Order: sequence, then C-alpha cells, then structure tokens
Amino acid sequence: MTKNYRIDFQPLGRRGECATGESVQECSLKAGVGMTNICGGKGKCRSCRLRVLKGCVSEPTSSERDFFSAQELEAGWRLGCQVYPLADCSVYVPPESMTTPQRTQVEGLEIRVQPDPPVLCYKVDLVAPDLSDLTADADRLLQGLLQKHGVACRKVDEAVLRSLSMDLRDSEWQCHVGVRSDEVISLRSLPGPNLGLAIDLGTTKIAGYLVDLENGKRLSSKGMMNPQISFGEDVITRIGEALRSLEKAAEIQKTVVEALNRLTRELCDEAGCVPEQILEAEVGCNTAMHHLLLGLPVKQLITAPYVPAASFAIELKTRDLGLNIAPGAYIHMLPNVAGFVGGDHVAMLLASEAFDRKELVLALDIGTNTEVSLINEGRIASVSCASGPAFEGYQIKYGMRAARGAIERVRINGNSVECATIDEAAPVGICGSGVLDAVAQMYLAGILDRGGRMIERHPRVRNVGGDRQFILCPDERPGEEGLVGITQKDIRQLQLAKAAIRAGIQVLLEASGRSGDEIEEVIIAGAFGTYIDVQSAVTAGMLPKLPLSRFRQVGNAAGMGAQMALISSAVRKEAENLALRIRYIELAGSPQFSKIFVRACYLGDYEEGKG
Amino acid sequence: MTKNYRIDFQPLGRRGECATGESVQECSLKAGVGMTNICGGKGKCRSCRLRVLKGCVSEPTSSERDFFSAQELEAGWRLGCQVYPLADCSVYVPPESMTTPQRTQVEGLEIRVQPDPPVLCYKVDLVAPDLSDLTADADRLLQGLLQKHGVACRKVDEAVLRSLSMDLRDSEWQCHVGVRSDEVISLRSLPGPNLGLAIDLGTTKIAGYLVDLENGKRLSSKGMMNPQISFGEDVITRIGEALRSLEKAAEIQKTVVEALNRLTRELCDEAGCVPEQILEAEVGCNTAMHHLLLGLPVKQLITAPYVPAASFAIELKTRDLGLNIAPGAYIHMLPNVAGFVGGDHVAMLLASEAFDRKELVLALDIGTNTEVSLINEGRIASVSCASGPAFEGYQIKYGMRAARGAIERVRINGNSVECATIDEAAPVGICGSGVLDAVAQMYLAGILDRGGRMIERHPRVRNVGGDRQFILCPDERPGEEGLVGITQKDIRQLQLAKAAIRAGIQVLLEASGRSGDEIEEVIIAGAFGTYIDVQSAVTAGMLPKLPLSRFRQVGNAAGMGAQMALISSAVRKEAENLALRIRYIELAGSPQFSKIFVRACYLGDYEEGKG
Repeated sequence: MTKNYRIDFQPLGRRGECATGESVQECSLKAGVGMTNICGGKGKCRSCRLRVLKGCVSEPTSSERDFFSAQELEAGWRLGCQVYPLADCSVYVPPESMTTPQRTQVEGLEIRVQPDPPVLCYKVDLVAPDLSDLTADADRLLQGLLQKHGVACRKVDEAVLRSLSMDLRDSEWQCHVGVRSDEVISLRSLPGPNLGLAIDLGTTKIAGYLVDLENGKRLSSKGMMNPQISFGEDVITRIGEALRSLEKAAEIQKTVVEALNRLTRELCDEAGCVPEQILEAEVGCNTAMHHLLLGLPVKQLITAPYVPAASFAIELKTRDLGLNIAPGAYIHMLPNVAGFVGGDHVAMLLASEAFDRKELVLALDIGTNTEVSLINEGRIASVSCASGPAFEGYQIKYGMRAARGAIERVRINGNSVECATIDEAAPVGICGSGVLDAVAQMYLAGILDRGGRMIERHPRVRNVGGDRQFILCPDERPGEEGLVGITQKDIRQLQLAKAAIRAGIQVLLEASGRSGDEIEEVIIAGAFGTYIDVQSAVTAGMLPKLPLSRFRQVGNAAGMGAQMALISSAVRKEAENLALRIRYIELAGSPQFSKIFVRACYLGDYEEGKG
Repeated sequence: MTKNYRIDFQPLGRRGECATGESVQECSLKAGVGMTNICGGKGKCRSCRLRVLKGCVSEPTSSERDFFSAQELEAGWRLGCQVYPLADCSVYVPPESMTTPQRTQVEGLEIRVQPDPPVLCYKVDLVAPDLSDLTADADRLLQGLLQKHGVACRKVDEAVLRSLSMDLRDSEWQCHVGVRSDEVISLRSLPGPNLGLAIDLGTTKIAGYLVDLENGKRLSSKGMMNPQISFGEDVITRIGEALRSLEKAAEIQKTVVEALNRLTRELCDEAGCVPEQILEAEVGCNTAMHHLLLGLPVKQLITAPYVPAASFAIELKTRDLGLNIAPGAYIHMLPNVAGFVGGDHVAMLLASEAFDRKELVLALDIGTNTEVSLINEGRIASVSCASGPAFEGYQIKYGMRAARGAIERVRINGNSVECATIDEAAPVGICGSGVLDAVAQMYLAGILDRGGRMIERHPRVRNVGGDRQFILCPDERPGEEGLVGITQKDIRQLQLAKAAIRAGIQVLLEASGRSGDEIEEVIIAGAFGTYIDVQSAVTAGMLPKLPLSRFRQVGNAAGMGAQMALISSAVRKEAENLALRIRYIELAGSPQFSKIFVRACYLGDYEEGKG
C-alpha cells in the first residue's frame, strides 16, 4: 500500500508530497526544490546534505554512516537521496545543497549621508625605543597618535595589546591605527580600506553589506536565509524554543552567529578582502532577533505587556558574540522601540527620511511581522501587526518563497488567467506577491465576494477534497487538480494577513484623529513590499485607497539605514533620538482593535466597509 | 650502595638530602618541611600531594594511579610518601599539603584616604511596566537611576543585561544597582556591603585584601605563595618559560588566576560573604607579573632595551581574565614605570607618601627584584636592582623562606652565637633576614674581612667538603657538620644581592648629584624589609650609613597602595601622574655601574670603600 507523506522543505518554504519508497531527494524534484543531485541519487556525491528537523525517517545507510559523524547523524544530518520518510517530515536544505538561489532583497535607497564613521584610521611613524627613551610600546603608540594627529586615546583593546609589541617591531614601528572614541581597536602594518559591515537581520532573511567606512562606498552586498528558521518560522515560535533551555537558547544564538560569519566571509570574498579588515559592525533587526542574537532574556517579550529587555543602542565587542571580524571591533545594535518594533524599523524610517516629514506620512515594513508608523506633523506613532508568514509563502497550499518558478503576478481577464513567474521559469508554486495579486484580481473579476468567499461560477474554480480552489496553472493531464492554485483556505490566510496590516493603519489614523485619504505619502519597505503590485494591495484592502502616485516602494530601507548608521555617528545619535520619539501603540491595548480588525478582513476599501 | 639526592622543596625554598630508599615525604621531615602525614606514609590519606617539577623519580604506585588522573600524573602530581627520588629533584608542595604556614606580609601602613570608589551603589524602586508604560526593562532602570539619583548611565554590562529582566521581576522592581562611570555593572535585590578586592601580586608572594568600598574598612586580608614559582623562582626564568609556547604562557596565566580565585574565596569565607559581591578589583605588581597576568607579550621585557608592552593603567572586565567576582566587575591594574619597575612600586610610593616629599628621600621595596626610588626636591628617579632570590632563602645552603623554624636573628658575642627562630621553634634553616644578620655580625666580629672572606680563627668556622662554613647551630652528635650554617658561598650570594641594591642607590645619588649622608629618610617596604635588622643592613653595606632614626620600615606598602587605589579614583589618577613623573634609569645604561657594583660588594660603608 503506498502512502503519501507531506514534506516541508526549509528554508525555501515549499511543501511536497512523498510517496512510500520515494527519497526526500526525489520528492524535492517533484516539488520544484532545486536540490543538487550530481551522482543521480546513489549516495556517492554527497551533494544533497540536509537535516531532518521533524518527522520519522528511514535508518541511515552505510554510505551516510561513512560520511556523517555520529554526532551529525544524531543532529539529523542525512543525504537527501538516502533518506526515506516514514511520516510527515520537515527538512532543512542548506544553501550549498540547493541549485535554486533565493531572491533576497539587498538593494534599496542610496546612501545619502556624509561619512562620519565611528572608527578612524591614522598612520603613525614611531621611533624604536632605546636606552634614552624607554617608553612602553603601547604608551609610545598613544603618544604618537597624540603628537602627530592630536588624537587622545586612553585605552588599547586587549586583543590589540596582546600582539602590539610584536606587530610594532615587525612593521619597523610604522603602522596604521584604528581608533574608536578613545580606544585603539586595530593595528596593522599595511594601508588598506577601513571596512564596515552592515547587517539587516530579518526573521526570515539576512542582508549584509560591506562598506568602506571612509567614503561610504558599498563594496559588496549579499542576501541569505536566516537559518534560525529551523527553530520556528515566526518569532513567537523561535522565542518559545529559546525558552526551552539555556542550551537551546545558546544553539539558536550560535546558529545566527555562524550564518553572519558565513555571510561576512562571502561578502569579503566578493570584495577581495578578509574579515579581519572589518573594523565595525552595525545591525538593525526586530526586537526578537536582537535579543536572540545578544543572548538577552526573551520571556518578557512574549508575556504581557511585551517589553524588551533593553531598547537603547547596545555596543559590545564583536568577539564577545563570536562574530569574526577585527579582534578589537565593536558591534553596534540600533535601538529598539518596543517588543515588536525593533531597530530595523528605526533604520527604515531613517533611510526613507520619513521621520522628519511635516505632512501626514505612512511608513510600512511588511514582513512576517509588519511595523507601521504614522508620521503626523512630526509626531510618530507606531504599531506592530502580526501579519504572519503568508506573505513569505507559508500556510498557503502551493506557497513558496520568492524563488525561481514562483508565480509573482496574476492577471484575470474573463476566462483567461495569466501568470508570471520569477525568472520566467515553469511554475512550481506561488509567492506572497502572487497570492496578493490573485486575490485582488479574483475580487475584481467577481470570483471573490467582499467577504472573500469564492463564487463557483468561474470555470477555473473547482472543488478539491472539500476545499474550493481556483486553478492558476492547470495540469495538462486530464483529471488532475491543477499544478498551482489558490484555495478558499489560502484566501482566508491572506485576508487575516492583510487585515492585520490594515487594522494597524486604522488604529494609527484614529489615534491621530486623521483619515486615510489625508495621507500624503505611503512608504513601503521590505522585500515583499518591493515586489507587490500596489494596486492589488489597495484593491485587496491592505492599504488605504489613494492615488497610486502617493505610494513609494523603497526596497530594503532597513538595510540602507543600517549602512547609514554604520558610517555615521551622527545617524546613530539620530536613531537613538528617533527611537525615543516614537510612541508605540500596543494593538492589544486598543479597545477598538477587534472591531476594526473584523472590518479590515473584508476585501476592497476599508472606508467602504464602514458604511 | 646508598646514594644521596638533593631535594629542593618549593615554594618553601628549603633543600634536603634524600638517601636511596627514602621517600620524598621522609626527606621532607628531616629537612624541616612540615608536610602533612596523617596515615604515616601508607599512601592512604593522600594528604601529602605534591608535584615533581624536575628530576627523575620512581614510577607511580597503584595507590597513586587510583588517586590521580593520567593527566595529573603526566603533570607530575604524586603522593610524597609514595615517590622515591632517583636523581636530584625539585618538588612543589601545595599549601594544603603543608603543616607549616608561610609568613607572608599583609600588614603595613593604615589607609589614610577618603573613599571615592570607582563603583557606587544606588537603591532604585521602579514601577512595573503596563500597557500605559511599555519602556524596556534596562531603559526603565536607567531612567530610575537618573530620576531618583541624578545618575546618567549609557551602558549596562552584558552579563547584567542577560539576567536583568528576570532579576527585576524577581525583586519586584526594587533593586540595588552598582554603577561604574556611565555603566551599570551589577544588580541585586538585597542590600549589602559593596566590596572591593586589592591584590599585591608579587613574584614570590601574593597578598589579598577584601575592603568595603564605601568606607574603606578592611574586612579580611590574607597572604599566599605565588604558585607560578613552579615555572621559575625569578621573573626572568618565568618569562623564559612563557616564551616557550602560547600554551605555556596560557598555563602560567591560568596558574596565577586560579590562585587569585582561591585567595578571593578564602578572603570572602573569612568575611562571611561571596566573591559575587565584589564589584571592583585593584592589582599592583611588577611589570613581569602584570604582563603574565594579562597575557601581554613579554619578549621585549627581557630583550634590550627592556620595555613594557604597556605602562598606562589598564582596565578590563575581570571575567575576561577568568577572575570570578561580580560578572560585570572591572579589574584595574596600577600603571607600570618601566620593564622592571611596576605598579607595586607606584603603590608603595603612594602609600608611604614618599612621592610628594620635598626633602631627599630614598624608598626601597626589597625582594627578588628591588625597586629603589630617590625623591629629590619633588623629582623622582628609579632603578631596578636584580637582588636575586637570596633574601628569599634561595641559593643559600641552609636557606629557607621566612617560616616556622627559620633563623631570623643572629648575634655573635666572642665565641657565643645566639640565634632566634620564627615562632621560637627548633631551627631548621635560615631565612633572608637571618643571613643578613649573620653576615653583619660576622663582619663586626672580625670573622669576615671587608672583602667577605671568612677568617678561620673563630671556633665555629670549619672546612666542610672544600667549602668554609660558619656553624650557627652545631649538631649535638659528634663529627657532624652542624645543623645550620653559613658557607663562604652563601656570603658571596649575599654580597651580590646587597651590592645590587647599594649600587642602585649609588647610581641614583650620583645622577642627582647628592651624597648618601644627605638622605633625610629611608623608607623600606616589603616583607623582607619589614623583618631585617636595619643596623645589620647598614653594617653589611646594603644601605647608606645614616642615623637609625632616619629609617622607616613600612611593611607591605604596595598592598596598602593597592587598597588606596581600590577605594579612590583620585588615588588612581595620582598613580597615573606619578608613573609618568618617575624618571627610570636603566642600570645597564649607566657607564659607572660596573665600577660602582664592584665597590658595593665590599662589606661596611660604601663611602669608606671609596677611599
């Protein structure tokens, strides 16, 4: 008897069906997950390494026992072609085992800030000590800095001190000194760019930027998935995992630190330099990612009234986190606003310049969690909306991340349905912007009513296993349900997600005594926000009904803000002031919220729904 | 055939002869080394643990194999009653295996400084967060400090941050906060003394003091041997060991850190508190001990022109050194002056108040290395004298540390020789002050000539094995050479040691254009300096010939200076200024030094020797 198991491929977010006797590798091919498969599934090339996160699978084969250590097998590491599911499973496919690169957002606004970096470099020529001048090595260096450059330092980083005597002698007393505030944090014999690392650390994706601190020039940029996703797709699940034990929390922290180290090496490889040249790191992220990275307590983050352990900007030595850049370098964490509004939102407000606008401006960073700020005559109020992972392709039957083969655009003209996929590849699933498009188009075509109910009069609507479904790409084979579709359940998921955002906006408007049509500009940041069709977002009722010219999609503004803060102490100061200025409104504390949320679930304009 | 091996007992400094078939434990008893021996040498009580540092010994017995791990055996750990020497050996007897406590110097001048501690404590009552006030926990704490006490902090120590959310909730938002500069370094729910730890870290001995930071009251004090002695008796040997490999250097560092942790626990036990209550540590030590503790490079310390890696006052988190006090606490290292004049000398100058005297003042800290400063109308010049370990009882035939049974005073009246021992115990050896006394008395009695040659006309002078010897305590058995004596070689060792000091003083005097009889006061610090008979030191020509009323023995002034710097930021500042003010004279660079040294070797007044 054959049985079908459901396999959940992480971090891609794609799900597949696996029949008895089918390997995970075979299943991945059918599901459109591009796993490498050099030896043709013989367990020889070992290119299809993966980690079983959940679910029962076959025992390791001798090939796997040869390849993996007992510890690795214990941790769930297997070869995709050698492992057979015996139940529904969840597997993590590391980037090196995948052929399909993920589309992550690293581009965005351009840096428009005068460099004023926290670390400055100076060339110092010293005279070697002799009997007439017995000044200690480090003191000699500090004197040189003061005499030649007028720079008064009082401290030398311990790691720098530990190699300073040898370094100075090796370089014949000529060196390039990195100074941060009143501390010497690096010493090297050769000149070279003074590099900084900016990180936009998202729940799902990480974007990294290597920047020249002196001129603000970006030398390389790169995106990757956040491998912490193996501990939970959303922050609440991840925090729950961290609370299970100190070891678990340490493991979650180590996972992201290792990812950042990998990303840093890749950024350096691309720019032709080494991580030890990086003298400063800047991180913008949501409060949960912030706390999990720093090892701060998280229990109070998920317990009412949901407060951060710390909001002010934190600086510490990167080595204390295990981040491998220059040994004396610091990491600066942008300040948080509240338990669910973090430094990434502050960075986004900075980069988009939304924060000092005089008109009524709405700024959103759409993701698994969506932060929304309303800037009203210089006053800023923010909310955090639990939009959930539907926009990332989760909890959608054919959902997947924005990768090759994902449907990202849908147009319905009568009976004709047109779908565009990423890289124009054969469709293998649908990503967030595709779902939003589909829902808007189905609503416009009358296939969905205002309540989101699918009406059966369109030929593409079918009943499959008790669930109504709209077929986007029909399977050519007769009798099949269709390769990719949107189910009634998917529509409900999207309604909840968009309602969370729309309700958040509404609470902000009502708290400010303003109405949606007064908004002069809507700034949309984030990867998802970059790729959505704004008209569809308005049609679906996720965003207020306004002329399209009032919307501005700014890409990864959080990443840009992190880069600005990396190269400018003035921007850091501004970020701290900004974080203090923002008035956070806890939606759970808003008495009108439930009523507003229910109304926001309707498709179409929120204002119409009021009538 | 029986054969005798020579056994060197560390850190006591006593040497014994061990016949074939005799255990190290048996030898220790004969040599007057008080090793515990509860089971009577059956290898059962395991109280006679020791470590073989050098020399060939018998294989471990089954009893030892049961007791020690393979790693411990590898490191030389053995039971004294089970190990039989097969060659000359050197063994380290840890404090817990000894019955005879060491006399170490912890007392000295009284603290006469207004407390102005680097860490201040504040009581803060906070209001728990609710929906109307969602301020983050750490930010709330900082606001509380500012509002209630006007204290503006910008940082919270990472370790404090990691437990802060839980600590605040557990204490119901009432807490006692330790603030250092602009950083919160501790948080606790209960009030209690704010403790500080001051350490005088010597090459041979360590003195520790537990002090109440708020009122300067000393709660406990304790001395111990520096276990680094197993890596070499003097700093040069120890640095040589550290240069062998990074692992060795790390081992040397770990050895002293573990000793400091042990000392800290004992200090706390005595005062009825725990190390986690200690909020600040202050260390004064010579430059080599400073570098070995901090893991700084030492090669340049023993390579001309002998400069420190760093001289300025260094502060770092104690946790980064492995020192277990409050997790957020700092350790402050007093500034060094030169490669062989360290923060302990600065501390001594501060505590003795020698540094701001207007008269001509000489200040010495006598030890394995002797630092001497001449204060001349407010100007300070210093030298470092390689006095060697003779004053500690090393390189003296019957030499031992200042412990029970050591001869510390000698008086010769014609044919009568009187010896006083520590604790009035039966004599087992002679310590530094005893050797100095014996030499002075022998010189006065005409048994030694000015050149230090022993004249054979005294009945106590005998020739033993080619070396002339003066018997201090004759053995009652006929034909024996005497239980304790002074050999011609010992006299030479003492002459070299005292000449080093006298020559150093002379170089200082000549560099200042002053003569010895102009000195208004001679301040003598250090354990050895406390116990010497000043008249003997003058007679032997170690110190200038001056009225005895001009000498002041101040005990462990370095330890006192460390305590002053611990409780007062003003004293720290003064220490930094002082270290910069001192003009260090490298004796190796003084053209007259060899000539002066040769002349200083003569017994009697240096000035007479000039004629």
